[in-house]
Amino acid sequence: MSDEEQRIEQLIRSWAVAVHDGDIDAVLAQHTDDIVMFDVPPPDQGVRGIDAYRATWPGFFEWQRGAVFDIESLHVTAGEGVAFAHALLPCDTPEGLTTNPDRRLRLTLGLRRENGDWVVAHEHHSFPLDG
Amino acid sequence: MSDEEQRIEQLIRSWAVAVHDGDIDAVLAQHTDDIVMFDVPPPDQGVRGIDAYRATWPGFFEWQRGAVFDIESLHVTAGEGVAFAHALLPCDTPEGLTTNPDRRLRLTLGLRRENGDWVVAHEHHSFPLDG
Repeated sequence: MSDEEQRIEQLIRSWAVAVHDGDIDAVLAQHTDDIVMFDVPPPDQGVRGIDAYRATWPGFFEWQRGAVFDIESLHVTAGEGVAFAHALLPCDTPEGLTTNPDRRLRLTLGLRRENGDWVVAHEHHSFPLDG
Repeated sequence: MSDEEQRIEQLIRSWAVAVHDGDIDAVLAQHTDDIVMFDVPPPDQGVRGIDAYRATWPGFFEWQRGAVFDIESLHVTAGEGVAFAHALLPCDTPEGLTTNPDRRLRLTLGLRRENGDWVVAHEHHSFPLDG
């Protein structure tokens, strides 16, 4: 793994901790103003822009108090100025994980390098559709 | 848009046409042996490797005969050797689109440049979860 890939892995792991802690400032850090997020719930067209991205989090923080949001596996591919990463996360209440222990949140991120720092420009969060 | 971003846009649009045509060789072209796909259905852990990726398509081709699979919007970000892209696609039967005209497949791709050519190393396909 390259030094840049290690930097990005640290960025993503810190972001996941911030999500679990409900720390909105740390969740928003190192995200671009023009971020496009394909979230688990609608809208189908995606959440567009940092203000809309910010607005998605309070409801999720409320839901996931006492729940799990841990990176189980993470793979980063970084070039000079652009990178992407994909990860799997148990993301559920303790009761949900007992019922569906293999259920995973699938997460993909797209990043750009700006002024020497990596920033997240795209997130795609989903669960598989059963049946 | 850079020349490389135009090349990648053309690659993705050709792939989508191949999906709609049920042309498995063209669907597999310019995909890496180690591709990881987070598909709409399970498995939660992702479809891993080109053989597993190939195996997902015949059932989908069968379903989508006469259905829609069109790129409605596409945004590519390319660096020297790594790129990512996100897209929205109506992907449904004509009846489904009548019932849910705003439903979109959300697609994210991660690409690497190998021997001068762009290849797809990651795909994430999903629909939002309602309710």
